[in-house]
Amino acid sequence: MTEPSPSTPPAPSSPDTVAPERRGAAKVYLVGAGPGDSGLITMRGVACLQRAEVVLYDYLVNPEIVAHAPAAAEVHCLGKHGRTRIWTQDEINRAMVDFAAQGRTVVRLKGGDPAVFGRIAEETDYLRRHGIEFEIVPGVTAALAAGSYAGIPITHRDVASAVAFIAGREDADKTETALDFNALARFPGTLVFYMGVTTAPQWTRALLDAGKSADTPAAIVRRCSLPDQTTIITTLGRLTDEIVPATKLRPPLVVILGEVVRLKPMLDWFERRPLFGQRVLVTRPADQAGGLVEPLAQLGAELRVQPAIRIGPPTNWGQVDAAIARLSEFDWVVFSSANGVRYLLDRLRALGRDARAFGTARLAVIGPGTAAELDRYQLRADCVPSEYRAE
Amino acid sequence: MTEPSPSTPPAPSSPDTVAPERRGAAKVYLVGAGPGDSGLITMRGVACLQRAEVVLYDYLVNPEIVAHAPAAAEVHCLGKHGRTRIWTQDEINRAMVDFAAQGRTVVRLKGGDPAVFGRIAEETDYLRRHGIEFEIVPGVTAALAAGSYAGIPITHRDVASAVAFIAGREDADKTETALDFNALARFPGTLVFYMGVTTAPQWTRALLDAGKSADTPAAIVRRCSLPDQTTIITTLGRLTDEIVPATKLRPPLVVILGEVVRLKPMLDWFERRPLFGQRVLVTRPADQAGGLVEPLAQLGAELRVQPAIRIGPPTNWGQVDAAIARLSEFDWVVFSSANGVRYLLDRLRALGRDARAFGTARLAVIGPGTAAELDRYQLRADCVPSEYRAE
Repeated sequence: MTEPSPSTPPAPSSPDTVAPERRGAAKVYLVGAGPGDSGLITMRGVACLQRAEVVLYDYLVNPEIVAHAPAAAEVHCLGKHGRTRIWTQDEINRAMVDFAAQGRTVVRLKGGDPAVFGRIAEETDYLRRHGIEFEIVPGVTAALAAGSYAGIPITHRDVASAVAFIAGREDADKTETALDFNALARFPGTLVFYMGVTTAPQWTRALLDAGKSADTPAAIVRRCSLPDQTTIITTLGRLTDEIVPATKLRPPLVVILGEVVRLKPMLDWFERRPLFGQRVLVTRPADQAGGLVEPLAQLGAELRVQPAIRIGPPTNWGQVDAAIARLSEFDWVVFSSANGVRYLLDRLRALGRDARAFGTARLAVIGPGTAAELDRYQLRADCVPSEYRAE
Repeated sequence: MTEPSPSTPPAPSSPDTVAPERRGAAKVYLVGAGPGDSGLITMRGVACLQRAEVVLYDYLVNPEIVAHAPAAAEVHCLGKHGRTRIWTQDEINRAMVDFAAQGRTVVRLKGGDPAVFGRIAEETDYLRRHGIEFEIVPGVTAALAAGSYAGIPITHRDVASAVAFIAGREDADKTETALDFNALARFPGTLVFYMGVTTAPQWTRALLDAGKSADTPAAIVRRCSLPDQTTIITTLGRLTDEIVPATKLRPPLVVILGEVVRLKPMLDWFERRPLFGQRVLVTRPADQAGGLVEPLAQLGAELRVQPAIRIGPPTNWGQVDAAIARLSEFDWVVFSSANGVRYLLDRLRALGRDARAFGTARLAVIGPGTAAELDRYQLRADCVPSEYRAE
């Protein structure tokens, strides 16, 4: 994949110069990437990506999902909050039309589901008016993943026969006019707010003023389905106090309000896994890491497989160096071969660092040979499993 | 796959005899199968099915999705409305625990998303109380697919900043007490009812009585994302008249109420494809059908590939005979080889039938050799494409 970083929108073509019906234009696939975890995109979505010649993706989409595109595909990230300029809706629309008019197959990859707060109608209407064929592939929206991964069933036969998803605009002045909070406060079911933290004081106040009980159970779910998912259980009355100081709580974030929040103990599995919240660096060659990664991931670990370490030193140290720079952020570093030990520790030395770079990370080695190699570097393995079984 | 048909629940184990914590029990995966189309299950869902030793699936789940399970897996359909007895929730719960306690990996496959009206909390709570480990895999719920496949965006920046999903119980007497229709009528956004047709008179009346305008645009979407999807556009006031006579409108069915229904022309693509609604029988050996199936499916055709027809007569005529019995229900029959023509028409004759069995189905052949063979049987091809390009 060739990705200009940061992507900048192509030079805009004037809308007036676009022919209303273009012949030979390829199709645009508007694909929902799901809530985060790379396994939560649909089979159809992956099939579209595999035939993509151009991918335009929202910055929140998991890079592992973008990686389904062929190596030759042109890939554009549509901007990252606070990092790069974010493409305007007009620029996105025009890019889709321009790339498709070149006869290229375009995938417009969106977080969650395209029909839930995804501005899908604006994009398809623009494509339709420019004679570009399209297909929409739905995805798992964040509220559904909250049900599965945060352990909160957004509906329940006895507790909530209805669920509502509500979007907030970041321009807070419009929020109150756009939404009837009296009706929302009386909604007979679960409320799921897809609102940023900045508007939380407004909409929680509006719900309280409309008579919604301050004791209504609430859950703030951030980065749902990802290994660093966090869930804060609180109440509507305390929501603003909980959410506003947590300024690091960037999207994707949803707030679930309703009695179903109390059911979390019945459904919880994701956050209860033995290694949940543990970040693990695996220094195994990528082509051999498969057997180790799956059991660790099943146990809840957040894995970084360092594919640059192969038999023989890597030709490009960039990724290894990046991992070394963040070594102390990991909970575990797993060495699965003597080579892995040697390359990582020799590189550490070459960078002018020493074993203190590991910080408080614990060290695991697979096999006694690997342990012996680590010992040569004056380091003691905290864990030497004989097979791939986590302690 | 070995499927006892119709499946009957295993002999119930008394809940009292179940140990609170079982050792060595395998995991239960509660997987959302999505709205219908076999491509709309997640990658994670397929991965779970591929490791399944037992599959318990709701009857609405697409059989092509169930087919991801290994051939050796034990597969149970949990009953079909009006055809076989439907397993009770208790029987499902007990079966999950019993199979897992045997050390087998169980996939509980549900239509849509498990957290949307899927009784997920009841099932996970039972598993939890019996010490069985589980994982939940979300899916695309029907309302989202309606957005993508029926061309109705359930949210829109200017028209609907909120959307609500509402479940109905089939026991109509409970509906009115369970739901506050005054609040629903005032809900500031789109309403999506996951209700059966039988309760439509009650809930439409309740919404109208609560002041919801009779002119509110409505869409009845049946079998969303499947080749025989149907969408009826109407209004709240006329909904009962439209829905009730259509007693054939069996689930899965959702009703969308709100201004977004008017946006259908902006998003429509699925029902506009050239072959949408056309049922096509392809008499090509399954291993050669791939190149033909994808373009026809892309054009919207509902395909039946007849895998029993191979080079040489099939050893088991069951599937061919079943296709022959329903030959007149197809819009097109596609012959892609002279062998295909010969085997189908000879079999037709062996069954004591003749070419009238085709009814009004049109005949297409791939290649002049196949056309000549058809001519030997006194039949004229309606269409002889030289390549796989649909007219």
